[in-house]
Formats: sequence, structure tokens, C-alpha cells
Amino acid sequence: MKLFTLFVFLLCLLRGSAQNNDSLFVRNIYDQALENGKAYENLRSLCKDIGARITGSAEAEMAVKWGEKLLNSYGFDKVYLQEIKVPHWERGTKEAAWIENENGEVFKLNILALGGSVGTNGLIEGDIIEVKNVEELKKLNPENVKNKIVFLSEAFNQKHINTFSAYGGCYPLRGDGANEASKLGAKAIVIRSLATPTDNHPHTGVTRFKEGVKKIPAAAMSTSNADKLSQWLKQGKVTLKMEMDCKIFPDVTSYNVIAEITGKDDKIITIGGHLDSWDAGEGAHDDGAGVVHSIEALRILKTLNYQPNHTIRCVLFMNEENGNFGGKSYASIAKEKKEKHICAIESDRGGFLPIGFDVVKSKDHLKMVEKHKKLLSDYDLLKFKNGHGGVDIGPLLDYYPDMVQLGMAINSQAYFNYHHSEADVFEAVNKRELELGAAAMATMTYLMDQSIK
Amino acid sequence: MKLFTLFVFLLCLLRGSAQNNDSLFVRNIYDQALENGKAYENLRSLCKDIGARITGSAEAEMAVKWGEKLLNSYGFDKVYLQEIKVPHWERGTKEAAWIENENGEVFKLNILALGGSVGTNGLIEGDIIEVKNVEELKKLNPENVKNKIVFLSEAFNQKHINTFSAYGGCYPLRGDGANEASKLGAKAIVIRSLATPTDNHPHTGVTRFKEGVKKIPAAAMSTSNADKLSQWLKQGKVTLKMEMDCKIFPDVTSYNVIAEITGKDDKIITIGGHLDSWDAGEGAHDDGAGVVHSIEALRILKTLNYQPNHTIRCVLFMNEENGNFGGKSYASIAKEKKEKHICAIESDRGGFLPIGFDVVKSKDHLKMVEKHKKLLSDYDLLKFKNGHGGVDIGPLLDYYPDMVQLGMAINSQAYFNYHHSEADVFEAVNKRELELGAAAMATMTYLMDQSIK
Repeated sequence: MKLFTLFVFLLCLLRGSAQNNDSLFVRNIYDQALENGKAYENLRSLCKDIGARITGSAEAEMAVKWGEKLLNSYGFDKVYLQEIKVPHWERGTKEAAWIENENGEVFKLNILALGGSVGTNGLIEGDIIEVKNVEELKKLNPENVKNKIVFLSEAFNQKHINTFSAYGGCYPLRGDGANEASKLGAKAIVIRSLATPTDNHPHTGVTRFKEGVKKIPAAAMSTSNADKLSQWLKQGKVTLKMEMDCKIFPDVTSYNVIAEITGKDDKIITIGGHLDSWDAGEGAHDDGAGVVHSIEALRILKTLNYQPNHTIRCVLFMNEENGNFGGKSYASIAKEKKEKHICAIESDRGGFLPIGFDVVKSKDHLKMVEKHKKLLSDYDLLKFKNGHGGVDIGPLLDYYPDMVQLGMAINSQAYFNYHHSEADVFEAVNKRELELGAAAMATMTYLMDQSIK
Repeated sequence: MKLFTLFVFLLCLLRGSAQNNDSLFVRNIYDQALENGKAYENLRSLCKDIGARITGSAEAEMAVKWGEKLLNSYGFDKVYLQEIKVPHWERGTKEAAWIENENGEVFKLNILALGGSVGTNGLIEGDIIEVKNVEELKKLNPENVKNKIVFLSEAFNQKHINTFSAYGGCYPLRGDGANEASKLGAKAIVIRSLATPTDNHPHTGVTRFKEGVKKIPAAAMSTSNADKLSQWLKQGKVTLKMEMDCKIFPDVTSYNVIAEITGKDDKIITIGGHLDSWDAGEGAHDDGAGVVHSIEALRILKTLNYQPNHTIRCVLFMNEENGNFGGKSYASIAKEKKEKHICAIESDRGGFLPIGFDVVKSKDHLKMVEKHKKLLSDYDLLKFKNGHGGVDIGPLLDYYPDMVQLGMAINSQAYFNYHHSEADVFEAVNKRELELGAAAMATMTYLMDQSIK
């Protein structure tokens, strides 16, 4: 055997052995998650013992304690809270709306105020004008909008394979609709819920007013209600009566909850989801799943006695839903402390079947992930593409533009049946799918720790 | 440009254009399925207007009429029934079991008789012996089994990524347990349900007695009941009381329901699922989903005015669950008529997210499917491997060993939460996942029609 051939042969052996080690270790991760997993029980506890946990609520503060206690129980190298300032909006106790047509028929709507909305200060009333979306709204003459109640009615485009694309298409209805309607003099705004199915759950979420724009009441109605209202409007004039006493309070102090396994060097891999949720349902898929995925990934690596090259830090971010002050503060504190962030992985797309990972921007980073394609395919992780990482980890990119960022790609088909609604409860999560998500997160954390120097 | 270069260039253009045509046509298939799909409404009708439809029941005969009428309404080139003989087993009206420990504590079990079981002829009673599985049972001394009630208690191995592997591992408990227990003189048998989760639904399914073996009563209890029984047995003797009046009746006449779009040649591509179900729940995932996937695939191809090269035949098979006489008869009639079968595609793994296709045996067939990998990846169909086709189409292989057979691969994580139990109802199916399954079936039918000469 020639020396060069021998060298290549030995290299192949080494490479083979590294792959074999990876493959054995990943099998151990999955065995832990599927046989002795804690993710499902942890999610049950977060959903049932704490419940919905909107930023600024007592439940959010309870969730911080819950996370800190749970992370402490696993004996990680460090567990600590990171103090941040967060907005505080409350739904209040009054929330009702009715439509009435020219025949005097009255129908009660299923509504949820949008986060950031102001209350109505008693019962308000106005004629409804239906507009498809914000783009169409902007084209209207203010004369035709003044003192009216704007109804934005665009439905999800069902042709998209990934439902997040349909959500993205309708996002301005909720995010910008109230701001634009107010600029045109509207009295209030109601929107078709941002949801995939036609059913009776309203879906809340944040709406934003620009500096100097008068805040007006804004609510989402169920998709079936929206269909009914459109139908009534085809037949003639419809008025809406609405009362809501939601309110914006001064900012409060809250916390990101953090745990670490210390690495051999001073570089950091962040894994996380967000601890806050909307105040409807139990925040099971959004983002209780991401919280327990991240905690479980760290727990499994610890249980398997993994000694990471880099510090693995699990972050339960506060306030993703209405401000992202958890994510923004985490990034700016990192910069301030001159931390060395090389990678972040987020889970914020539900507790459904994981199917792969989205890799932010860089083609080289995508290639690095795809190097493990064969190994990952054994676990039905099959989809790797450049795409979105996560809202919470996004701000890190401002300071660490070259870091690797990954978003766990999860079967999206049912996500917007539950998202931001009373339907998002623990019972809507399948145990094994949740466990596979935790295992996928632990696996990718391990592979990135091994791959990034 | 040299002549050869020109030739290669033109070939590339043609190839590119064929791929482009495929890509446009498949996009149209998905648009049809997701925007104007009938699969979900058809499934609702099959589950709610007909219900559970075990072979030999009035519901099964109603389902035949239902299928024939629906297929006729779509204006296919041919719609007809294929007469077959099928077994007829009925659950009866009595089905109850209790366990009692040495302290006189009594606990009522949630049971379902296994298909093919005989009744108890009044209340029977016996001491329970717990055995893990059939392998262990076969090792026992008949003296220790005689007149006892055998309890087979093996749980699903949760480590398997595909839950069908866990099901396969436990399958002998249900399929062969009663036969083996009877050979050793057992009075009856009860098994842990073949199911993924620990919950309170019993799951039925077929059990088989070999010629000459005395038929004994056989039932499945819920997985949580099985855990409780194992716990009690660790503490001392436990007796079981059981009454069931299930019964085997003489064979009856039933039908496979068939529709065709006539092709340009006399070769045949079969697509199908099975119309019969167990008598618990509504047979929504097993296999109402496969039925409406197949009907919808044919409807979409017709709606798009597709003129197939080969005849596309949609078959709603009768009697997959307890005998497979629909599949067996279909194959032998095909052989008799000297039909030319080149391909068959089955959907019998539920209405969850489709993730790819299993290709039976042949590596060449797998390669032919993988040629379309890039196109299919746009629709999140990512998993292609040699594997199982389907029970209904399986017998065709006896006569057409070289034909292409495909089984639609579907997210399996929740399937055995529902399979053969009262939980398998319409509400357990997600509309979009069902529609994506229909689109995947139409797409693969189209691609095979184009690829197989």
C-alpha cells in the first residue's frame, strides 16, 4: 500500500469513526427523548399549572419562577434570570360585539381584542365598511372611512404549502390595519382572524400604532364570523356595536430565564423558545412547545454527560409576542458583555412533527447543516433550506452577523388552527411529536457544537 | 455549433420543457386539492352519513352504495362493482370484563373483542397469567396455561421513529396470541391494545386461528388498563370475569367499488384504499382517508382534463381488515381477465401529513420515483425508500411481480392513537393534511403514468 493510499485510508477510518460516534450519540438522544422524556410532562405543567402567560401578567411572573425552578432541578452549571423591561397590556373583562343588518337582525360575534388595542370606553357603534387588506385600505378616500368601522376580510391563501406563507400574506391585516385605519379617521377596526380553517375561534395577536397615530379599538373575529359578515354586507348596510375595556399599562420588569452547560471555550450556542404567550388558551404550541423543546434538549445533553466544546445556553425568552423585548435585551446584553455568540437555534413553530431546519441567510451555513443530512434522515429530518431562524434570536444577528442561526422547521399544516386562540391547549399537542422536536433540537445543538470551531 | 452539441442542446431543452410541464401540472393538482378540494367533505360524509363499516355489516353495504354514487357523480369513464365473498363477524351486544384481586377489589376494564373471536357463552371466569408476548407464551408448559386466561402485555417500543415498526413488533400479540394460547389450553386471552399512548381506548383488530385450533374468546384492553392489571399481578393473584357475545356468521357477498379514466393503451395503474373499517369509531384515518385520497386523486386528474397514457383505476377495496378478500379477489380477477397491471399506489396509513412514498422491493423502481425528487420536495414530499406498498394491492404482486407498487408514506406519530378504536373519528383528521395526501396521490399517479412506458 502506497503511503498516500494509506493516509487516505486512515483519514476515511477516522472520518467514519466520527460519523459513527455522531450516529451513536444521536441515537442515544432519541432514546432519551422517546423513552424517558420529560417534555410532555413539562408542557402539561406549564399549560395547566401556570396557563396562558401574557407579558406583564401574574401568570408570566409565575412562569418565570416555574422555569427557574425546573432548570435548577436538572443541576445545570448555571441557572439565572436576566432582568428586562416589558410592555404590559391587559384584555380587561369586557369584550363583546354584535352586527346588525337593515332588517334589524342581530348576530353576536366571537371576538378577541388585538394586543395593543385600546378599549372602547363604553358601547360604540358604527357602519361597517369591508376592505380586503391594508393595501386596498390605503387607496381609500378618507371621507369614506371617517367614523366608520373598518372590516379587513382577506382570507388565508390556501395554495401555500407552508401555512406560515399564508400567515405572512395576511399579517398586515393584524399588524398594520388598525394604524392605517386610524390614519384615515376610522372609529375602530375588526379583522378576519389570521387562521387556516373556517371555524368559530377568534385569534388575537399584536397590532401596532406608529408614533403620533391615535390608538383605536381593534379586534379579530372568528373566520366563520367573517364569512357571515361579508355575506350580510353583500345584502346591504351593516352596523357594528362593540365594547372592550382592554388597556395599556406602564412597562414592568420581567425576566429571560437562562440555564447553561459550560463549554470548554468561551463561545456560546443559544437554544430557546419564548416563555410568554397570548392570554387565550394555554400557549401550548405557541410557544410552550419551544420552551420545553429547549429545556429538554439541554436536559438530554446533561443526562448523556455530554461535555460541550462551547457553552450551551438555554434561554426562555420573555415577551416575544408583543414587543420582543426579551430577544432584543438578550442581544444587547450579549454585546455589552462581549460574549462570543457563534450559533442560535429557536423553536417557535409549535409542537407538531419536526421536519428539518431553516438556516438563516448563509449558503455556507446551510452546507454545514446538510453535511449531516444522511444521519438526520434516519429521524425523518429531511428539509433543510435557507429561511427564517426565530423572532427571539433574530436581534443577535445585529451584533453577530456571521453567527449560525437555525429555526426548527415543523409541520405547519395545523399550526394556525390553534395559534393565539383559546384552542391552543395542552391537549392539542401529540406526545411523540413533541418529544421528536426536543430530540431534533438536542441533535442539532450537538451537531453544531461539534461542527462550529 | 457542432451537430452533436446541437443535439444535446435540443435534448436538454426538451427535457427541461417536460420537467416544466410536470411542474406546472403538479402545481395545478395542488391548487385543486387545496382550494377546491372535495376530500374533506367526502370524508365527513363517509364517517357521519355511513359510519363504521365492518365487512358484512349494513354499513359496509351502505358504503358500497355511497362509493358507487359518489364516483358516478364525477363522470368518470367507467364506474362498476366487483363482486366478492367476504367473512362476516359481529361484535354482538355484550362486551364486558372485570378484574378482581385477592383483597376482593374489583375493576372494570375497557375492552373490545378482537375480530374473529368467539363469544364467551355467558360469564366466564379464570385466573390470569401475564406473559410478555407470543414468543414467551410458546415457551410455557401447557400445565401452567390450561384453563387460565392469558394476558399478553408487551407495550409498543417507543424508540422506533416510525410507529408502524412498533406496531409490527407487537402485532403477534393480536394476530397470533389467541391461536397460541388456545393450543396450550387457555380458556381465553386478553391483550394490551396495540397502541402508542397510554390512555383509556381499547383497540380492536383481527386475530387468527389456524385450522383445527379451538377458537377461544379474545379481547384487547386499553393500555392504561393493561398497566393497572400488570401492577395488580405484581401484588398477587388476579382473576378475570368476562362476557362477550361476538359471533362468526357465514360469508356474504360484497363488492370492491371501482372507477376508471380510460387510458390510451390497455395498461392499468391502480390507486386505492379500503372501504371497510373496524366497527369502533368511524374508520376516519383507517382507511376513510385512503378512500377519499384515491377518489380525490382521480377527480382532480379528471377535472384537469388529464388524458392518461394508461388507464387510471381507483379501487375502494372491501375487507382489508379481516381477510383481505377484496385485495385477493381483485388480483385474481385481474389475472383471469389477463389485465396488464403496471403500477399500484395505496393509501392506508391515515389522513395525516404525507411525507413521501415507499417503493416495493425494486431499486430500479425507487430510482424512477427519485427522479422526481426535486419536484416533489416543493410539496414537502421528501422521503423515498424501499418499503411496504399496501395490504390491498399486495396480492397483485403474485401475478405481476415486476409491476411498480407504492405505499404513500404518512406521518405515523399519532396513527396508533386512533387505529381500530372509538377515537378514529372524522374530527381527528386535519383538513389540509388530508388534502395534501390527495394531492400527493394524484401527483404520484400522474408521474407514474408519465414515467412507466
